[in-house]
Amino acid sequence: TVGASAVFPGASANDELLRLQKDPNQWAMANGNYASWRYSSLNQITRENVGQLRPTWQFSTGVLRGHEGGPLVIGDVMFIHTPFPNRVFALDLNNPGRVIWRYEPTQDPSVIGVMCCDTVNRGPAYADGKIILSQADTTLVALDAKTGKEVWKIKNGDPAKGETSTMSPLVVGDKVLVGISGGEFGVRAHVTAYGLKDGKQIWRAYSVGPDSDILFDPQKTTDMGKPVGANSSLKTWEGDQWKIGGGGTWGWISYDPELNLVYYGSGNPGTWNPAQRPGDNKWSMTIFARDANTGMARWVYQMTPHDEWDYDGVNEMILADNIQVGDKRVAKALVHMDRNGFAYTLNRENGDLLVAQKYDPAVNWASHVDMETGRPQVVREFSTAAGGEDTNTQNICPAALGSKDQQPAAYSPKTGMFYVPTNHVCMDYEPFRVSYTAGQPYVGATLSMFPPKGSDNMGNFIAWDAGKGKILWSKPERFSVWSGALATAGDVVFYGTLEGYLKAVDVKDGKELFSYRTPSGIIGNVNTFTHKGKQYIAVLSGVGGWAGIGMAAGLGGDSDGLGAVGAYKALSDYTQLGGVLTVFALPN
Amino acid sequence: TVGASAVFPGASANDELLRLQKDPNQWAMANGNYASWRYSSLNQITRENVGQLRPTWQFSTGVLRGHEGGPLVIGDVMFIHTPFPNRVFALDLNNPGRVIWRYEPTQDPSVIGVMCCDTVNRGPAYADGKIILSQADTTLVALDAKTGKEVWKIKNGDPAKGETSTMSPLVVGDKVLVGISGGEFGVRAHVTAYGLKDGKQIWRAYSVGPDSDILFDPQKTTDMGKPVGANSSLKTWEGDQWKIGGGGTWGWISYDPELNLVYYGSGNPGTWNPAQRPGDNKWSMTIFARDANTGMARWVYQMTPHDEWDYDGVNEMILADNIQVGDKRVAKALVHMDRNGFAYTLNRENGDLLVAQKYDPAVNWASHVDMETGRPQVVREFSTAAGGEDTNTQNICPAALGSKDQQPAAYSPKTGMFYVPTNHVCMDYEPFRVSYTAGQPYVGATLSMFPPKGSDNMGNFIAWDAGKGKILWSKPERFSVWSGALATAGDVVFYGTLEGYLKAVDVKDGKELFSYRTPSGIIGNVNTFTHKGKQYIAVLSGVGGWAGIGMAAGLGGDSDGLGAVGAYKALSDYTQLGGVLTVFALPN
Ligand SMILES: O=C(O)c1cc(C(=O)O)c2c(n1)C(=O)C(=O)c1cc(C(=O)O)[nH]c1-2
Ligand SMILES: O=C(O)c1cc(C(=O)O)c2c(n1)C(=O)C(=O)c1cc(C(=O)O)[nH]c1-2
Repeated sequence: TVGASAVFPGASANDELLRLQKDPNQWAMANGNYASWRYSSLNQITRENVGQLRPTWQFSTGVLRGHEGGPLVIGDVMFIHTPFPNRVFALDLNNPGRVIWRYEPTQDPSVIGVMCCDTVNRGPAYADGKIILSQADTTLVALDAKTGKEVWKIKNGDPAKGETSTMSPLVVGDKVLVGISGGEFGVRAHVTAYGLKDGKQIWRAYSVGPDSDILFDPQKTTDMGKPVGANSSLKTWEGDQWKIGGGGTWGWISYDPELNLVYYGSGNPGTWNPAQRPGDNKWSMTIFARDANTGMARWVYQMTPHDEWDYDGVNEMILADNIQVGDKRVAKALVHMDRNGFAYTLNRENGDLLVAQKYDPAVNWASHVDMETGRPQVVREFSTAAGGEDTNTQNICPAALGSKDQQPAAYSPKTGMFYVPTNHVCMDYEPFRVSYTAGQPYVGATLSMFPPKGSDNMGNFIAWDAGKGKILWSKPERFSVWSGALATAGDVVFYGTLEGYLKAVDVKDGKELFSYRTPSGIIGNVNTFTHKGKQYIAVLSGVGGWAGIGMAAGLGGDSDGLGAVGAYKALSDYTQLGGVLTVFALPN
Repeated sequence: TVGASAVFPGASANDELLRLQKDPNQWAMANGNYASWRYSSLNQITRENVGQLRPTWQFSTGVLRGHEGGPLVIGDVMFIHTPFPNRVFALDLNNPGRVIWRYEPTQDPSVIGVMCCDTVNRGPAYADGKIILSQADTTLVALDAKTGKEVWKIKNGDPAKGETSTMSPLVVGDKVLVGISGGEFGVRAHVTAYGLKDGKQIWRAYSVGPDSDILFDPQKTTDMGKPVGANSSLKTWEGDQWKIGGGGTWGWISYDPELNLVYYGSGNPGTWNPAQRPGDNKWSMTIFARDANTGMARWVYQMTPHDEWDYDGVNEMILADNIQVGDKRVAKALVHMDRNGFAYTLNRENGDLLVAQKYDPAVNWASHVDMETGRPQVVREFSTAAGGEDTNTQNICPAALGSKDQQPAAYSPKTGMFYVPTNHVCMDYEPFRVSYTAGQPYVGATLSMFPPKGSDNMGNFIAWDAGKGKILWSKPERFSVWSGALATAGDVVFYGTLEGYLKAVDVKDGKELFSYRTPSGIIGNVNTFTHKGKQYIAVLSGVGGWAGIGMAAGLGGDSDGLGAVGAYKALSDYTQLGGVLTVFALPN
């Protein structure tokens, strides 16, 4: 079933995946579809009846640390996964909780020590009768979806150098695309395409380095509408610094089968101390549009040149069509809620920047984005580079974990709106000089985090108008909303909270219609499917991730966990660790 | 509020506990009341509406291994606990899941290696504004129930000698009674009374040894109606063997405030190889009735003299009144479903043996109990002593873990019947010579376990008529029922299964009226209470205990885990580890 699609000539989309992602009875891809909508056209659960939703069955994964990602459903089988040691369970929906098979890779536990932000995993991919899992130790493995037996496996990186993996691979045509983590270890990151059939490497595109490594065509690859020219990355670094330049590719990948382009963002440049790496540090903090067949970059846009705050640009790229921006209707848009607190709307055909607006009014590090140059206008008071080494720059908003982190938003084509789990957190940031040793942390900053002055909520769940660049409504939450959202045709949006509540709110005003306290804080993504004609909602609980790193890794100092421990200390008054799948439905 | 009760003159019962255990809105003692009924007079949840029961909130404990015991509820606060490291959480019922305080003792993890049957704990006791917890390492600690701060703590034993603790202490008057584990390590066990106020030792009664250690009065302490005489224990052991004689006191303790007697059973004699310890090995495998003030034994009854099968006699003693045995009405009875497969009904005033009948038809090691002598009539074919050392005696029923293990039964005074979670498992048993080293396993037998020939269920949930000595009804379960039962005035009985189902059945015929799949296998005990006038059912999930030791301790060989691993291997096809509290209620 692998091959060129009849619908999209010239594209190499995977027919089976194209079919499955259009079938609302399944949940075949981590973010629902190639466009990362996290939307379902199912409408049995509505704003009128969602209040009656209840858990119908549950399954503990036997793993304690943070559970990101969400279940996949293909036919009568649900696939769930865990953080390190990266177990995968195939569960029988005809006999809920019955384990058809389980897989637990053998991994050297020393990898735990080089994972920056908990031992999370955002879930495997399904394609062609295989479950593709990117393990913590960067082993990419294809399992037979029927038996759980290994079909092939390869190593994408080396944990001894700080290379790890947390991301969810994306299958495009006959290729598996996978990124790599290690921005806090001076890893020069890449996205790599492997053959779906055999795991053979097809292309690799680094985030930083020579044009041949980053797969740029100086003439054809564009930035803000212009060719990037030769050595566009190299010339923004001093000397060899690009070799430990970071630009992690640990986030989400989207795909447009018509354009045959994949979209993803890169993370922070190596060391959080900006004084040690003069220049724009391209192409860290960048949105990439690449040809799926070759990996060649079509266009790029760097959101945070010369990062001074750890605002990784890896959040999901939502591909939405026919967005009205002023008097222009944008046929093919890309919407991206960046860590830096700006929400970007671009033309995904050519990378034109259409909208860049703050989606949390607390954002203060930049006044605005200059729409001519695409550059944020940095406010000196909150520039850690201006402050300089060993100076504590205070009250920067957002904190390093951004106005939003990895937790994916949802897009409803029915309302045309985006439903975004956000953080509402600020920080003090003190850069210091650090030297690089392979496999050792290469951070170079001490942070502390806290809610914005005058706020006592550390998160909001918001509805965003990506054409206008405006918040439609905003629902405060005690802690950051670290769970992925789900929008449905029933006019309800679902998300989880760090205390452990699964919530459903009304698309139109964010009014809370349902809430249930699952066993542990939710940093997983809510998914939906049907079984025997009935709609179910499923989510993994299990607090952790960067926000929950204090509990997950047993850390206690306020500036531990790269500054997150102090801010989320109160979390342990509400929840404890523990991975559990909960499946919800309406009463019969 | 500690002092002599006005209702029961001469008794030293704790007034507050007597009051609390009569209030069905609370669940103040591990087994519901001093009589270990596990019964509630609440009747909002009935056979008619129990099908609508649903989870209302949950709380993950952050601990993976087996969760035995159950929640306590005092006023608006619920107290839950975990296996090692023995965390205790006080949860606010007015704000479900909100942690009022949490306690986590610092314990040397080496204790894990000397716990025979998982790192379980059967829960703390409440009394006098204190939560009394017996930690794995035998530290007995009293916490302020309001703040979780330590009031006092003492050491009851020494893990370096294999002394550990899993049991739930019982508060009687101004004393805390606590036993000790270590039957598989040659520990000479005891029950000890400590002052509730300050933790000072008041009395200690060993299971085996000189009369002064076992607190026997040769003239006044009786066995089958006759004085035991001098050295009743010593003369049933060869030489000094009693010093490593076992007789673990790791089970439940009951109390009759009118008689001021406490009741409990002792476990297996040291080494499972009977050839190494000729004699009756008194008072292992014995029911004790002791004066609560002094510890002096009033009467004893040894169920399994010279144990050859590890049939620890520690299961709960249920104190029921007005049981009709033949044409006799027994005002004060004690009903005990022993590991050895016989259910005993005794007169608890004097120890008279009234009924001893098999409660699983599979039981084959003894044909019957001689009612004159009280001795089981052993079937030679299934005698591991007759088989001898290094001989594998086969198809003995029950297996070492008994027709029932620690999982407590429930008694309904409304129906007069006992609702018993049972095991339906047999074994092969090969004794071998072993030598004693302090702190090292002193087992001396290799076991394998399996369902009885012709059965494919490994457990039954039964209703037992203790007067007639007959099974009223029996409901098969795939695995042994390792969870404690709860009977209610709503005419439904609750229990959990190793797959993780909480079930409710009709008292009259065992018909299943409700079942919900909680996150993990249930070995905890089901409790009930009200909050703001509404009835709730609460249970801890978290597979483990001896039956779940394979998963809990990560063991794989069939005869690992003292023979349990092979028998329960299929469990991991149904559930995984993880401690979660689930609170159920009817819809509003
Ligand atoms: O630079 C990197 O390589 C890298 C990796 C990861 C990761 O793999 O989880 C995170 C981050 N950075 C990061 O900056 C971040 O905020 C973050 C949050 C989380 C999480 O799962 O909660 N992971 C990561
Ligand atoms: O002899 C002992 O000291 C001792 C202790 C324990 C315990 O403390 O849990 C068990 C046993 N024996 C035992 O024989 C047994 O069947 C058993 C089951 C369990 C359990 O919690 O599932 N514990 C124990």
